[in-house]
Order: sequence, then C-alpha cells, then structure tokens
Amino acid sequence: MSVTAAKGFRAGGIAAGLKPDGALDLALVMADRAVPAAAVFTRNGAPAAPVQVSRRHLAEALGVRAVVLNSGCANAGTGEPGMTAAVETARAVATEIGCLPEEVLVCSTGPIGDVVEVGLITGALPDLVGQTLASAAHGTAAATAILTTDTVPKEATYRGAGFVVGGMAKGAGMIRPDMATMLAVLTTDAAADRETLQSILGRAVAVTFNCLDVDGCESTNDTVILLASGEAGGVDAEALEDGVEAVCRELARAIAADAEGATKVVTLRIRGAVDDDAARRLGRAVADSALVRASFYGADPNWGRILAALGAARIPFDPGKVTVSYQGTVVARDGMSVPGVDHDEVAAELRGDFTVEVVVGDGLGEAEILTTDLTPEYVTFNGERS
Amino acid sequence: MSVTAAKGFRAGGIAAGLKPDGALDLALVMADRAVPAAAVFTRNGAPAAPVQVSRRHLAEALGVRAVVLNSGCANAGTGEPGMTAAVETARAVATEIGCLPEEVLVCSTGPIGDVVEVGLITGALPDLVGQTLASAAHGTAAATAILTTDTVPKEATYRGAGFVVGGMAKGAGMIRPDMATMLAVLTTDAAADRETLQSILGRAVAVTFNCLDVDGCESTNDTVILLASGEAGGVDAEALEDGVEAVCRELARAIAADAEGATKVVTLRIRGAVDDDAARRLGRAVADSALVRASFYGADPNWGRILAALGAARIPFDPGKVTVSYQGTVVARDGMSVPGVDHDEVAAELRGDFTVEVVVGDGLGEAEILTTDLTPEYVTFNGERS
Repeated sequence: MSVTAAKGFRAGGIAAGLKPDGALDLALVMADRAVPAAAVFTRNGAPAAPVQVSRRHLAEALGVRAVVLNSGCANAGTGEPGMTAAVETARAVATEIGCLPEEVLVCSTGPIGDVVEVGLITGALPDLVGQTLASAAHGTAAATAILTTDTVPKEATYRGAGFVVGGMAKGAGMIRPDMATMLAVLTTDAAADRETLQSILGRAVAVTFNCLDVDGCESTNDTVILLASGEAGGVDAEALEDGVEAVCRELARAIAADAEGATKVVTLRIRGAVDDDAARRLGRAVADSALVRASFYGADPNWGRILAALGAARIPFDPGKVTVSYQGTVVARDGMSVPGVDHDEVAAELRGDFTVEVVVGDGLGEAEILTTDLTPEYVTFNGERS
Repeated sequence: MSVTAAKGFRAGGIAAGLKPDGALDLALVMADRAVPAAAVFTRNGAPAAPVQVSRRHLAEALGVRAVVLNSGCANAGTGEPGMTAAVETARAVATEIGCLPEEVLVCSTGPIGDVVEVGLITGALPDLVGQTLASAAHGTAAATAILTTDTVPKEATYRGAGFVVGGMAKGAGMIRPDMATMLAVLTTDAAADRETLQSILGRAVAVTFNCLDVDGCESTNDTVILLASGEAGGVDAEALEDGVEAVCRELARAIAADAEGATKVVTLRIRGAVDDDAARRLGRAVADSALVRASFYGADPNWGRILAALGAARIPFDPGKVTVSYQGTVVARDGMSVPGVDHDEVAAELRGDFTVEVVVGDGLGEAEILTTDLTPEYVTFNGERS
C-alpha cells in the first residue's frame, strides 16, 4: 500500500539492469490523470540533472501524471549528457502512458558521476507500465526499487477523516537537511490546488526531513514530491497538512533508523534559542559534529562536546545557560557539569535510541533534530569503492 | 629546542598530577622579561575560561612574561569557578616568577566540563619554575606536557637572517578552523611591537592553522601565542612573517599527521573560486564531509562526493567547470567524469599522503586546506568515554 493507499494512484517497480546485482531499480508512481503536485528539491549548488528537469517540468506543466524513479545511478555530475538522459527518460514515460513529457517528473539516486543508461530504462518501461496498470498492489515493489544502500523499504500511510496520505522514501547516506539524500513520493486523494500543496509540503518538510541530519552530507538529488488526486474530494487544509506531516515524519524516522552503519536514533531537542530557526541551526551543528555522534555511539554523556559544537555554530546562545540532559538525566546545568551524576548509570540508558535535551538560553525558540550515532561501520562502509 | 630556540626564552614541563597516568601535564614558557606578544584565539561561542582570561590579560598588560599551559583538563564549560581557577593560576605563576598577573597567559587542554584543580598547579609551580630557570634545555618537556591524545610532541624551528622563530603545538582531535583544538606557543628573538606581531600572526594563522580541517569540530580552547624577546634586534617584517608562517605551517602539518586515527594527510588545493575566501570555504566544506574523508580512507577517487560537498557549501562556484584530480590524475573535467580513467591505478596512488586539486570555475581565488582521512579508529577512539 503506502504510495498507492490513496485513491487514484498506482505504482510499480522492476529490475531494469541499472543495478549490477539485478535488484529492483526502476519505479513508477502514476496518477490516473494529471493531478496537482508540489515538490521540494535539494538546495545543493550542483543539483543533479533529474532535479533540474523535474523542477522545470513542474513549473511548465498544469499537472503531474507520473513520477519515474531509478536507483543505481544518480545521474549527477553529468553535464549536458545527463540533462539529455533525464529529458529522454521523461519523454519515454510520456509516450508509454500517453501524456505530455512535462507531466512526468524524474528522480535518480545512486553513485554520482555517471550518466544514467537511458536505453535500459526505455527498454524496461513497457513491462513497468504493464505491471503498474495491472493492479494497485505494487506499492512495495516501487518502494523497493528506489533503495540504494538502504536495507528495508520505507513506506507510511495516514488515514484522515475521509482522505488518505501515503508515501515511500529512500535514505541511507548523505543525509542532512536541505535535504536528506533522499527521494520521497507522497500521494493523497484529498483535493487541493498546487499552491496549497506546495505550502503544506514546504512546512511539513521543514520540520521532518529537514530536521534529519545524519552525516552532515547534503546530496545532489534530494527530492520530495506530493501528488493529490482529489478523488476523496475537498478536505480541510489543516487536516491535510497533519496527514502530510505525519507521513513525512514516519518516513524521516525510518530513514534515520536505516542510516548507513547507525546503531541508534538520537532525538535532539533544542530549547531556549532566540527563535526556532536558531534552534534548528544549533541542533544541526550538534548533529553535524563527528565527535558528538561518536560519543552517541559510545553511550558517553559527553556534554562538553555538545557545548563545543553549539559554540562553533555562530548562532547566538548563552553558554552560561546551557543545560543538557541525556534521556532525562541532567548532566550539565547553567553551563557547568552537575556534580555527582553517575555516568555509568546514564550510559546504560544510551545503549538504544535515546533523547538529548539541550537548553541554550531563555528564548522561546525550539527544534527537534533526528540524528544517529557515527559508527566505525559507517566509515568502513563509505571507505569502500562505490 | 624549538620554543626555546630563540634567545631570551626558557621553558619547562612537569607532571602536576592533572593527568591520572602521571604523565607530564604542566608547561611553562617564560621570557627573561615582559615582552611584546600577540595571540589568536578560538572564535567558539563558548570559549573556555583560560581563553577569556588570556584575552583579557593580553589587552591589559604592556607585555607578556610567561605562558602557563596545562593538559588533562580544558577548564571549559566551568562557569565562574573556572574563571576563578584560571585567574588564580595566572596569579600563582606571577608570584612565583615575580611579575604582574596580567603578564601571564593561561592555556588549558583536555576534556571539557571539569574545573581545573588549581591546587595541583600551584603545588607543582616551584618545581616547574626551578626546572625552567635551571637550563634552556627543557623545550621538549614543555612540548610534551601540553599533549592530550597526541602521540608525539610537535616542535618547529626556523632560522632566518639574524633571528630565530621557534614553536610548539598540540593537536589530536576537534580540529577545524577557527582554529584547531590546538595550543601553540611561538617565540622569536626578533624585535617587533605587538601590533606588528598581531598582524603577522593573524595572517600566518589564516593560511596555516586555519586551513587545517581534520574533523570539522571547533574547540573551546584553541590558542596560538607569539612572543618576541627582541634580543636579536630589529628584523625586516616580511622576513619575520616568513619565519612565523613557516613555523605555523610545520606545526599544522605535524598536527594533521598526528590526528586521531588518521592514516594519511590529504592536501586539498582549490582553484578558480571567485576569491581566496570563497576558495577556503569551499575547501573546508570538502574537508568537513565525512563521506569525502571516508573515501580518502578507502583510497577511492570518488569525485562525486567532492561535487556534492561543494554544492552544499552555499558558496558561488560553477558545477559545469568542476575539474578534479587525485595526485595528478584528472578524474573529472568540466563537471563530468573523464572516461577511461583506471580507478585502480589512481587508487594505488592514494594509499599514503596525497593531493587533491579541485578547480571550481574561472576565478582567481585559491586555497590550500590540510585534512586527513576519516577512519574507523577515529570513531572507535572518540566513542570511548573521555
């Protein structure tokens, strides 16, 4: 279900030969007709060809009929040949399903530097479209076909009053706001125009995917797409936003849990910043710190590293007000260690997922950042030739 | 020699009991009289007590007579008690050697969160001052007493025309500009006023220590101090700057080579940026990337990760002009992979120290950043309770 849970959508996933091991690597999400859509793309200064093409198509077309997603190749760092390949991919899908090329969005994920082999995609499209049209039961195949080093497909469904929001995502590495190295497609049967969808998606991404910071590495391909079929009719915009945010949140957490080499998900709550934006930046600075994340791995309540990371963020905060608690135990208050804390007892609470609360002053700004531990496995894994 | 190579300086290092294993942990660098001095401090927003006290002393005093440095405790994240401890340390040194408290600078390094035990320092001072005065041969003892997880003392000496610049430093972890988690004391017998010294040191640090980026983690305690005894008389300011920069460069490289868990030093040369500052920021963004540094560890010429890191820096560059070479072999040109490169051959060149050149456009800005590989050992090491 998930990406096909909402009425009016179908999906499929097959092996087109882009992944050398023959795993599923080409996914299609299709609406029964061209529907209003919104998207949030990476802000990386070297966006991949599919990002550039999708951005253009979304601006040009009145609606979106399909999203085609491939793994096995990011088609990034590929110049004009990469652009041509992304355009051809959209055109081939349009021909196969009968729509305008601009009504097709393209997403790619995988290693950077090679142009995607369009021939493999076009050759596989008839089978993929056939599978997609045959039944609405192939949502998980689509979610599987977009995975790279992820170990499990990531799907989420939210059932609101009279409408459904579903989604799928992939993550794994290069995970930092704006955005994670991630692709996500959300679908809903609620009716909404594209401006409403865009503002709902923008706000939902800001507090979910963009508060996910696993390794501080921003990708060239990140894309989140939301399609609305309208088959369930009009829906209160706030209710729809709740649903979209819930699905984004569940997918973001699934990405964190499945991050390369990670053994635990850590929730960082920042409070007392001058505003929410400052809180988010401070939280990201903490989550970006290799030393902090190595201490998460070691179950070490090393608040000094958090203090140093806050100080390096160049964001106003009050070192003399810094209070840090690990899974409920305050280890530092007003910028100083709390005497008598049994660090072994605290460490015992940090073996699985845990929460760190950091107060940085008297302000009202707060944020919640999701991160993971940095492990030797992450380094070993990413030291291998990809 | 090194920090005592220039005429007019003495140094010593002893075990005061701050390190639990009884290793040397208290160092003193002493000028024969109060001399002109300059310093560059961390820009961390949570500076340690000794940084705050040294900054104040440097502003208040006409000259500097001594620098006292301890390892085993950073005296950071320690609020008012930490400030009191740093002030008392300076006062005790002043009493022992007969100078004003403001003529003493204080540096601390080690774990964050505990107030330094002043009693251990004051108790050890008579022996330390005795050793320091007894002979000028204790420079290496001083360089050893400031080490934390460093494995070797770091010293450098430059002999100019009629003058000498010497120095010592410690590094190990939390190594990123502004500045490395590092303490360094440089001495020279050249005569120069403090304004000249400050501008020379500022420029030298900008292109050496501040171009060293090992783990992206900025420390609360970073300090570089330059003292000038004047005993060799007036010296051409440019010649002196050459000497100061040479010593800073040698110490920076020694810090990189001895960084926690690192197996190789990587020199990143960025060219074609809009200006030098943009080049430095782009270079740091690359050096900050865990994925890039893991690929250095794996001897993987993965230029796509460099492209993604450049793109994440929010600094103007031209993705279509990006050319990347590893140890002389061009693997990407004009934003695309160069076909036919034998990656195994390139990888064979990346087993030891190597250089990566990155062209980011047509501009004149360039920079050289020193970094290291990210290794599983770094994570294991920093995952242990400190």
